Amino acid sequence: MLELEKAFYRRKVLIAGGLGFIGSSLARRLVEFGADVHLLDSLLPEGGANNFNIAGLEGRLAVTVGDIGDRGIIREALAGQDFLFNLAGRTSHLDSLRDPQADLTDNVTAQLSLLEACRNANPSIRIVYTGTRQVYGRPTFLPVDETHPLAPLDFNAVHKLAGEGYHILYHKIHGLHVACLRLTNVYGPRMRVKDARQGFLGWWIRLALEGRQLPVYGDGKRIRDFNFVEDVVGACLLAAIRPEAEGRIFNLGSGEPVSLLDLAQQVITAAGSGSAALIKYPPERERIEIGDFQADFTRIRSGLGWQPRARLQEGITATLDYYRENRGKYWEPESPSSI
Amino acid sequence: MLELEKAFYRRKVLIAGGLGFIGSSLARRLVEFGADVHLLDSLLPEGGANNFNIAGLEGRLAVTVGDIGDRGIIREALAGQDFLFNLAGRTSHLDSLRDPQADLTDNVTAQLSLLEACRNANPSIRIVYTGTRQVYGRPTFLPVDETHPLAPLDFNAVHKLAGEGYHILYHKIHGLHVACLRLTNVYGPRMRVKDARQGFLGWWIRLALEGRQLPVYGDGKRIRDFNFVEDVVGACLLAAIRPEAEGRIFNLGSGEPVSLLDLAQQVITAAGSGSAALIKYPPERERIEIGDFQADFTRIRSGLGWQPRARLQEGITATLDYYRENRGKYWEPESPSSI
Repeated sequence: MLELEKAFYRRKVLIAGGLGFIGSSLARRLVEFGADVHLLDSLLPEGGANNFNIAGLEGRLAVTVGDIGDRGIIREALAGQDFLFNLAGRTSHLDSLRDPQADLTDNVTAQLSLLEACRNANPSIRIVYTGTRQVYGRPTFLPVDETHPLAPLDFNAVHKLAGEGYHILYHKIHGLHVACLRLTNVYGPRMRVKDARQGFLGWWIRLALEGRQLPVYGDGKRIRDFNFVEDVVGACLLAAIRPEAEGRIFNLGSGEPVSLLDLAQQVITAAGSGSAALIKYPPERERIEIGDFQADFTRIRSGLGWQPRARLQEGITATLDYYRENRGKYWEPESPSSI
Repeated sequence: MLELEKAFYRRKVLIAGGLGFIGSSLARRLVEFGADVHLLDSLLPEGGANNFNIAGLEGRLAVTVGDIGDRGIIREALAGQDFLFNLAGRTSHLDSLRDPQADLTDNVTAQLSLLEACRNANPSIRIVYTGTRQVYGRPTFLPVDETHPLAPLDFNAVHKLAGEGYHILYHKIHGLHVACLRLTNVYGPRMRVKDARQGFLGWWIRLALEGRQLPVYGDGKRIRDFNFVEDVVGACLLAAIRPEAEGRIFNLGSGEPVSLLDLAQQVITAAGSGSAALIKYPPERERIEIGDFQADFTRIRSGLGWQPRARLQEGITATLDYYRENRGKYWEPESPSSI
């Protein structure tokens, strides 16, 4: 899209969480646009950071290993930047149940510190924060729009909601330029597939490629809403440049909800290997299970003209192709661990 | 109420924030009921703690000075308790804008630590958490019920929402017995009146008694909803003992909304001194101003049979009487500071 290309050409962009799944996909697009891209990543072992995610971009962007909560590092990284894509933090719901304090530190305390640094060191920077549909908890109506009640079912969601709240407050109180997205399940090349920490679809992709059994919880009829990563990248870029996004929160969604069993079958068919088995919810997953989810993304469609482009089937195929080619870079063969 | 008296007779009760306004009022009622009361308070200088709040109860309850975030102290304080009234934390919206990190530490990090301690040291304790109507932000409809969108306008509200979220999660995930209240403005004897940190009404009470001018922001037509502290105490006690309160969130409210100017005039009339003046909102207050507020408390009325009993006029008179008698215990004469 020419609008985006022009908007980012020779602009300075910091991506927090830049070696991760969405961060590195954003970086690729921005490098193509001729942006001056700087990645900041703390390489959390539970996160999506992977040096291979930026393979081929060596020398065309800068990388700093560090935490957004580290004041010295962040102050330096923010200097002179025009944009900040704020994708840093923990994403695993289950990890947050096991260690809520670590999730609090990385998703709340560090975010507050980052925003305070923006306010002090670079108050004109344009910030996009990626939140999560998990803040809605178990939907009381479908599709879920941005006015749906907020009822987080895990610590990660409580914390991501606080992080989002901070962004809105730094906009309202201190005039920072921010826009917030609430992402539904995101999938695509460069997602973490060695376990289910970035969602079960990554884990399924791997199992299918290995010819193994995809565990489908419950009766397989649960509905989920998946966005292909390139569509999410597009939404982040639009939200960063459009004045009408400022101070607002937008759902993403696909308009193509799918049941878990259908999804598993699509993956297996596209992979030409693997099988699906219905299994009982493990108790720790069942407690945070949200039921069916489908996003209403009318607000971003009408407000910013964003539309998801990738069909689920195409996205799955592209993702399988990527991991078929690069599997050695994302998991060790014979490492059977899920989480 | 006989039900309450029986429920707390000889039961062990810990009140976090017990030297504060609501905490000490709860303590008085519980001591009357024959409960074994233990207060924990960190004596935050910006908070409502005041030793005089428990005057006359000396020897009839235990007091520990300490922070809910201090693991050693809290573990010991929790041992053997039947109930925990969790009123600890910061309440000032303006302080939270000046130092969001301190508010985060005391209202989020410490709450997580406290709940983790409950889970480990006393998982059968019954917990009541007091949240705030500030989580709703600027109302989009009135009266505001519990399904109203959540859009915090200050850091304190972001943090109180996270604290509330933790309580609900510890119930859902770990089976702790919790109930959450969302308090609207609370007033009455023992509130902080030396400045406006516990709400402007305390500050006005003091100004009226000193024969000074009560500053009324804007056009004075803003609507607020005040609960007298004894009604809030009643709600806390009911929420602690009723099984149907478990895992739920309840608004409080008065059913008697009042405009700021009317309220000022009621205070002045009841005090027989003071005057009111309309003044422009200071910018830092205007940014977090929520517009009109009136609570819908149908849920707690139908669910727990709670009703506010005090009429505003009676409550104001009782509060003025208390501070007329005890002013030397709550502020220094000639200390003009607001905040």
